[in-house]
Amino acid sequence: MFKKVCVIGCGLIGSSVARAIKKNNLSTKIVSSNRSDAVNKKVIELKIVDDSSSDTKKMASGSDLIIIATPLSSYENVISKIKDSLKNGTILTDVGSVKENVINLVEKAVPENVSWISSHPIAGTEESGPEMGFSELFENRWCILTPSKKAKEKDIKLLETFWKKMGSKVDVMEAKQHDYILSVTSHIPHLIAYNIVNMTLDLQDKKESGIVKYSAGGLRDFTRIAASNPIMWRDIFIQNKKNTSKMINKFIENLEDLKKAIENEDGKKLEEIFIKTKKIRKKIIEAGQDVEIPDFGRQR
Amino acid sequence: MFKKVCVIGCGLIGSSVARAIKKNNLSTKIVSSNRSDAVNKKVIELKIVDDSSSDTKKMASGSDLIIIATPLSSYENVISKIKDSLKNGTILTDVGSVKENVINLVEKAVPENVSWISSHPIAGTEESGPEMGFSELFENRWCILTPSKKAKEKDIKLLETFWKKMGSKVDVMEAKQHDYILSVTSHIPHLIAYNIVNMTLDLQDKKESGIVKYSAGGLRDFTRIAASNPIMWRDIFIQNKKNTSKMINKFIENLEDLKKAIENEDGKKLEEIFIKTKKIRKKIIEAGQDVEIPDFGRQR
Repeated sequence: MFKKVCVIGCGLIGSSVARAIKKNNLSTKIVSSNRSDAVNKKVIELKIVDDSSSDTKKMASGSDLIIIATPLSSYENVISKIKDSLKNGTILTDVGSVKENVINLVEKAVPENVSWISSHPIAGTEESGPEMGFSELFENRWCILTPSKKAKEKDIKLLETFWKKMGSKVDVMEAKQHDYILSVTSHIPHLIAYNIVNMTLDLQDKKESGIVKYSAGGLRDFTRIAASNPIMWRDIFIQNKKNTSKMINKFIENLEDLKKAIENEDGKKLEEIFIKTKKIRKKIIEAGQDVEIPDFGRQR
Repeated sequence: MFKKVCVIGCGLIGSSVARAIKKNNLSTKIVSSNRSDAVNKKVIELKIVDDSSSDTKKMASGSDLIIIATPLSSYENVISKIKDSLKNGTILTDVGSVKENVINLVEKAVPENVSWISSHPIAGTEESGPEMGFSELFENRWCILTPSKKAKEKDIKLLETFWKKMGSKVDVMEAKQHDYILSVTSHIPHLIAYNIVNMTLDLQDKKESGIVKYSAGGLRDFTRIAASNPIMWRDIFIQNKKNTSKMINKFIENLEDLKKAIENEDGKKLEEIFIKTKKIRKKIIEAGQDVEIPDFGRQR
């Protein structure tokens, strides 16, 4: 499909993309660039890529497809390194979780003849690092493409095929809509999980054993989410701060309502809300986004 | 271990207790009482119990162990039905998630010669009903006993052995401490999940497909929690309203802090918090309360 693909940043997502490219024979050559020489060594050793170096310009040079898989706050720096060595017709993409800011930033920086099409594979685990990636990560997951104005139609189609060959389902949408929807389905859930686990840590100092010991009653599920990559999430919240801030206000408003119902022992209102929330899960299962079988707290 | 055990309320938990009693040969006879005749018929058909009827007094009569497994708001009614037919030396327990109120309520109502020892098996799934129970539900899970003042020491030991034979680890603690710890580890996590899913439903009316479609990014994990039994949770929040209300305030305070950090683009502060929250998961895994292997969104 491609002659040379370069993945910049082999973390969980970047290394999974590289593995999926190899597994599905999507490129003759696959290289990566990482700041850390230990990582460059490791990804070669693990045969995730054919070559890897901290010299990003050298690695990116001559690639048909370049995938930025570093935290959002590093894009400016990454682009400044590669922009003068991009070959004619290169497709440039990323795997970031927020779009509006970076699309504009990259669009301004790269030459006319580069197709900059942002990607967001909605996939991941709470683990980080190249060892934790796996080639099946994108199977049956959505990948949202948000093309820049400069992107050529044929390149959008090609990138769509690329993600589909790795097992993803692909949608194309505007950056603004992406950032709004993802703030609801992903960013706020993560922030809420971080917040409850952080609150628990404050209490834990006094009663640690009890809180960790009995965490199976609900808290445990949040700790999985709140164990996600700190740098990645720091950048996501800051990059999507307008939506995040608006949603936090809405969340608090709703929570104050629930508190009032509890304090007034308004059982009818609580029951109505909880019956409503039970129904959306059915929709998620119907939409193929989760399985119906209970996982018994994931004690597999 | 017992000659006759009566389970009042064969929902997910009650039917799982009955199944575990049968599987582990903990009683010669096991009966249940349910308001619905369809459920009474079903639990006999499924061979979960030997006999079942809506006549609670008749079913409970002559039992060595009675287990209340109905919602907290029904205890008063249940006790009024059985209190005059309890045999000398009966052990009375329950499986409720809040303790302080019900312990006093039941203690006042039952005769001196009954050992009232409240139980809380910290186990469950998001499913409800007798069909969804299974005998292994309590294996490797904590069960907290909160004995009333009337409880005999030997009966506390016996009930401890009972739960252990079903695979649980048992702790004994004061009702007040139980209600505090569980508000942190279970009640607030559930309330937060209900709240975020409820907020999403408001937004969904406008952009439904997007929100359900891309829920794998975090929201999905919350919908599992927010699909739990509405009646059970309505009662839990109302019964534990003092702790719940206090914790909501603390949660909102913490969230306002996070919001401020995001609005000020205070990356350092966010990073510090997210690194801290990542650590507690390690403790939970070390405490054997979850597994280390990522579950890939539970797509088993």
